[in-house]
Amino acid sequence: MNYRARLERIWDAMAKDGIAMTMFEDCEARRDTTIRWLTGQPGDALLFLSADRKSLLVPWDMIIAGKRATADEIVPYNDFDRIASKAIRAAAERFALPKGAKVELPSATPYPAFAAFASALEGFEPICREKGTADLTLSMRAVKDADEIAILRKATEITNEIIDMLIREAVAGRLNTEADAALLIELESRKRGCEGTGFETLSAGPARSFGIHAFPPWGAGPFATRGLSILDFGLCYEGYNTDITLTFARAPDPKQEEMLRLIEKAAAIAQGELLVGNRSAAVAAKIDEFFAGHGRRMAHGLGHGVGLDVHERPFLRNNPSADMELKSGMVVAVEPALYDPDLGGCRMENDFLITDSGPEMLTRSRVVRI
Amino acid sequence: MNYRARLERIWDAMAKDGIAMTMFEDCEARRDTTIRWLTGQPGDALLFLSADRKSLLVPWDMIIAGKRATADEIVPYNDFDRIASKAIRAAAERFALPKGAKVELPSATPYPAFAAFASALEGFEPICREKGTADLTLSMRAVKDADEIAILRKATEITNEIIDMLIREAVAGRLNTEADAALLIELESRKRGCEGTGFETLSAGPARSFGIHAFPPWGAGPFATRGLSILDFGLCYEGYNTDITLTFARAPDPKQEEMLRLIEKAAAIAQGELLVGNRSAAVAAKIDEFFAGHGRRMAHGLGHGVGLDVHERPFLRNNPSADMELKSGMVVAVEPALYDPDLGGCRMENDFLITDSGPEMLTRSRVVRI
Repeated sequence: MNYRARLERIWDAMAKDGIAMTMFEDCEARRDTTIRWLTGQPGDALLFLSADRKSLLVPWDMIIAGKRATADEIVPYNDFDRIASKAIRAAAERFALPKGAKVELPSATPYPAFAAFASALEGFEPICREKGTADLTLSMRAVKDADEIAILRKATEITNEIIDMLIREAVAGRLNTEADAALLIELESRKRGCEGTGFETLSAGPARSFGIHAFPPWGAGPFATRGLSILDFGLCYEGYNTDITLTFARAPDPKQEEMLRLIEKAAAIAQGELLVGNRSAAVAAKIDEFFAGHGRRMAHGLGHGVGLDVHERPFLRNNPSADMELKSGMVVAVEPALYDPDLGGCRMENDFLITDSGPEMLTRSRVVRI
Repeated sequence: MNYRARLERIWDAMAKDGIAMTMFEDCEARRDTTIRWLTGQPGDALLFLSADRKSLLVPWDMIIAGKRATADEIVPYNDFDRIASKAIRAAAERFALPKGAKVELPSATPYPAFAAFASALEGFEPICREKGTADLTLSMRAVKDADEIAILRKATEITNEIIDMLIREAVAGRLNTEADAALLIELESRKRGCEGTGFETLSAGPARSFGIHAFPPWGAGPFATRGLSILDFGLCYEGYNTDITLTFARAPDPKQEEMLRLIEKAAAIAQGELLVGNRSAAVAAKIDEFFAGHGRRMAHGLGHGVGLDVHERPFLRNNPSADMELKSGMVVAVEPALYDPDLGGCRMENDFLITDSGPEMLTRSRVVRI
């Protein structure tokens, strides 16, 4: 991975904003995969970047960091009693920041925690911005580089192999419980070298498919029996996530069939809108309008970017706060869906690479009529 | 569940602090199981409590809320475009709060988000405290009530059945890959009615057991072969989590055997300290001293409470910030461990109920020598 090229862009932005040091934090309460994006460290660490283009990684597990992470310096978090405010003070001193220098905290820093950092940073100027360095990196990450696209292609290839297996098993009558589907995904993904499923598989038979996110995610109950079953899963390969949803429809009644046709039509319309230059909110608005024209309302957004996070920019939501221009190199999951407390739910989700010559469909999930 | 009794205690505290309304938020970026503790809603919702003893739940998925949640009023988050600051304004108006009333935000509210809430709450006084209502509920939750203890007993019973199966299979030579162990847990837990595993199973064969949290968590590689293998898992039953770790030691060499004896001894010492009135930090300090006396250092805390969260209060950490007095009704996981980049790692973790007559060991994980 070309971590250095990514870091250079961040250092440039820091210089522009007059930031002497910025901090990233990945901890149990606040995950931040940007640390992996910048160093390879898969989690549980602090990362400090200084304006003079140095990086300092402070991981919880030094053994894992030693095997995976790249940084100018690596110091164990235990040296600071695993207290972030102690580590930030030490980092500022190690980088020999000038008095009064601007030190940026992660934008996810809880409001009451700011005071503890400010106190630890006496002599410096602590800042915490919504549109700060973290925000910039999230927007940078929305456009994948060649290394990332190669990994995502491999991740979607494996996802497609498993989609094909699932469909074959279901049609053959061997996918009879939610657990059958979930365990097949768990095992086959690991056999193919995946780090895991990127999120807990949602495997919901007809009695439970009404939930946007079925709860519990999966159980031992029937699957792919008469009616609508939803299977939403994603694989994580070298840190990068896929996210797809299959709907299995066994002998759907006319009302269920109507729902299925609507989401299939919505998926086709959405795909046609995944064009460089389009606005993400406008794509989502188009699908909301389509459903509204049929007297329906989708209870969630239309889609989202995928990458080191399962849900990342660009967000395809009919909401100005998340709006972004679509660019070549973005990878998005598109998931039109409808839910009914009595008829059950259906969702169809595929991942697309946006290119200058139009969207490339990377996955092949679909409504499977049995 | 006696949600009302829990709410009454919070309303009392709000009255004492002069808080007119408080907000809880459970969203993808910031999970808060307190909403489940107070309403039964398993996730993705806002909860507003008013000083005049009313509750307003604002869930993302109305169908799931309709089936599971208890609140005075339930209004879909979509009515506020899934924007928390819109919802809080509407809640303040719905509760007809007096002008200038104190409105409390979740203590996890990001620093930069405070301004948006403050602007939406014009005419009221927004506050966000580290030691606010959220902190109070986390301390309340550390001591389990009778309903919770009954659920945790059931959860640990199922955990023990699976521990026994895992040991039987390993000894019989049928647990040969990390996936064999992980998939057994996934399937058998669901067959017994669990909602799932509370966290991703850490199943690490001898080549990977050096990691505190093996990364990736599990794969298709060998397990329980010569050396030290770690299997750390937890089950979630009706929302409540267990957390245990087995170490499988096949033909350990003398250095590995020394590590095993040390963690077994540490576990015994720690158990003897789980007494009502002891301080959680002092228990952890005792074990740190024990390891130091043998020239070792444990890279993580000694243990933690378990409940709706896998990691919750009381934290058994040699650190004054997490210190609490141990009380009857607390349920804690205790996990002495040692890791070596060459020899591998070993960890032994069991869950205990603290009672006035001493600790009750709820689970039976151990070092399994093969």
